[in-house]
Amino acid sequence: MTEQRRCVANSVQRRPKRAGVRNALTKLGRILPPTPLLDLDIDGRIIWCKAECLQPIGAFKIRGAWHRLTELDEGQRAAGVVAFSSGNHAQGVAWAARRLGIRAAIVMPSDAPQAKLEATRNLGAEIILYDRDKESREGIAAALAGERGATLVPSFADPWIIEGQGSAALELERQMRARTGAGPTQLVVPCGGGGLSAGCALALPGVPIIIVEPEGWDDMARSLSLGRIVPVRDDAPFTSCDALQTKLVSPLTFDVLLAARAKSVTVTEREVGAAMRLAFERLHVVVEPGGAVALAAVLAGKVDHQPGTAILLSGGNVDIDRFAAMVGNG
Amino acid sequence: MTEQRRCVANSVQRRPKRAGVRNALTKLGRILPPTPLLDLDIDGRIIWCKAECLQPIGAFKIRGAWHRLTELDEGQRAAGVVAFSSGNHAQGVAWAARRLGIRAAIVMPSDAPQAKLEATRNLGAEIILYDRDKESREGIAAALAGERGATLVPSFADPWIIEGQGSAALELERQMRARTGAGPTQLVVPCGGGGLSAGCALALPGVPIIIVEPEGWDDMARSLSLGRIVPVRDDAPFTSCDALQTKLVSPLTFDVLLAARAKSVTVTEREVGAAMRLAFERLHVVVEPGGAVALAAVLAGKVDHQPGTAILLSGGNVDIDRFAAMVGNG
Repeated sequence: MTEQRRCVANSVQRRPKRAGVRNALTKLGRILPPTPLLDLDIDGRIIWCKAECLQPIGAFKIRGAWHRLTELDEGQRAAGVVAFSSGNHAQGVAWAARRLGIRAAIVMPSDAPQAKLEATRNLGAEIILYDRDKESREGIAAALAGERGATLVPSFADPWIIEGQGSAALELERQMRARTGAGPTQLVVPCGGGGLSAGCALALPGVPIIIVEPEGWDDMARSLSLGRIVPVRDDAPFTSCDALQTKLVSPLTFDVLLAARAKSVTVTEREVGAAMRLAFERLHVVVEPGGAVALAAVLAGKVDHQPGTAILLSGGNVDIDRFAAMVGNG
Repeated sequence: MTEQRRCVANSVQRRPKRAGVRNALTKLGRILPPTPLLDLDIDGRIIWCKAECLQPIGAFKIRGAWHRLTELDEGQRAAGVVAFSSGNHAQGVAWAARRLGIRAAIVMPSDAPQAKLEATRNLGAEIILYDRDKESREGIAAALAGERGATLVPSFADPWIIEGQGSAALELERQMRARTGAGPTQLVVPCGGGGLSAGCALALPGVPIIIVEPEGWDDMARSLSLGRIVPVRDDAPFTSCDALQTKLVSPLTFDVLLAARAKSVTVTEREVGAAMRLAFERLHVVVEPGGAVALAAVLAGKVDHQPGTAILLSGGNVDIDRFAAMVGNG
């Protein structure tokens, strides 16, 4: 068995657990302050917004990356890590690797937002570009990891990554309880590969989870409905939610969300733009398209806005020109 | 002596004190979580950025308003409050008044940013518009307060307001100490009427304070240099920093900053735009022009970027069109 195959095999052996989420939050609490929980008053009702876009790398992905990389042994650290990502996971891995003195190589699509490419490079990672339409990022990353004996750090198909991302929900629940005496009555979460939403479901087992995908990119929703994993349709329309353009989810994330009976909705480009605009005007935070889908779903009435509703603003890495074009549609 | 004159006289009798800043922070801690202290890495050196733009009203002004209004007695609360403001103080007073069940009337310039006018109205305040070039907001507000027996809540010429604003620096110092073991070595603060900067000087007496004003609007700097208060020059150029367009500072704020030997610098429109852009791209927060001047001063090299430098991002209430135009200059 090659090194690369062994890494992948290790990753799928273990199932993510709630205890791992708690452990991740403890580890993160030593190096990062909690992101703020902002209260957005819409017609007298509060939406509790967890501003993960204010993480040092501008997204929740720092959580999973830190939880994963801190579990590597000395030999694994010396051999380095390889990841593939449209941007936020790339930055998370690069940030954690730099802080731990680990060499990181990141496979990124050549059409990734300039902000994400530059930020990842500035964190000291080696960038390998690929063509999203013609090449397989999984293949390139796995081959590279095999060559170097490096550890592959998947963006969602990994128990540590899922547990790490879930720490956002545990942190949210504690903050909300400290402010209001109660945790969320429902949690609305952006979903690409499902790492964040599965982690949240593990973190808060009693809380209904609603996943939100861009219109036409609802492969997790269709998979949950069918009871088996299906890919994004070939004719999926353009979406500005680059962070959520996952073509196939993982059994690890799928199984957790299926067991949690997660519900799902989709949002349009226009609804995403309106949510980005509202976050700008009322919360004064910058949210990228994929990071705004949960807020968009509540604002558009696709999720019932019941008291105690909490959402994740999962990332804020967006080029200003793209941002201006999106909010103009709002 | 009329009611209105008695109010003004009361305000100037008492000098703001450090104990008042501590008291303000205690009161605020009961109702609001601390705003985040974001670390911005510029070429390997950190600028510690206190994100007051993430306050519920999008600016630090909520601090002084809460400290002031909670000190009113029953009779004063029943008679209501009157304030004049280009926008952020208006929202601070309206927010505190609504929460305390006090009637608030706010005198605002007719050319105030739409975002600020709407937000103040949405907080339930009565808005009285005036023409910035032809009418005196002080006169209108004082007359209104006199008619109603209401308490005038000045935006900076008031000991409670100054103490309340200073709580931002005390909170910053505690957060920075918890993260790094030490407080700031210098604090760079936007300056309009000087309420925030004087409050910060009171809060952290051992820490050098550098005030930042828009180019041509450096009346506090000139006043400090001359040792007496002088107004903004008649030929002051256009500035997008609407929150800092104060034409004459107050003896209360001036005296504190003079005693603290505050230093001062000015920044250009272009430097402000560049700072707003960097805050968007790297910190993922929305900062209005007047709120970005301290960051602009450090980025432009007008303040020596020594280790332990902290700045205030004092507000984020800016219309999207104005924002887009400003960051395009960066």
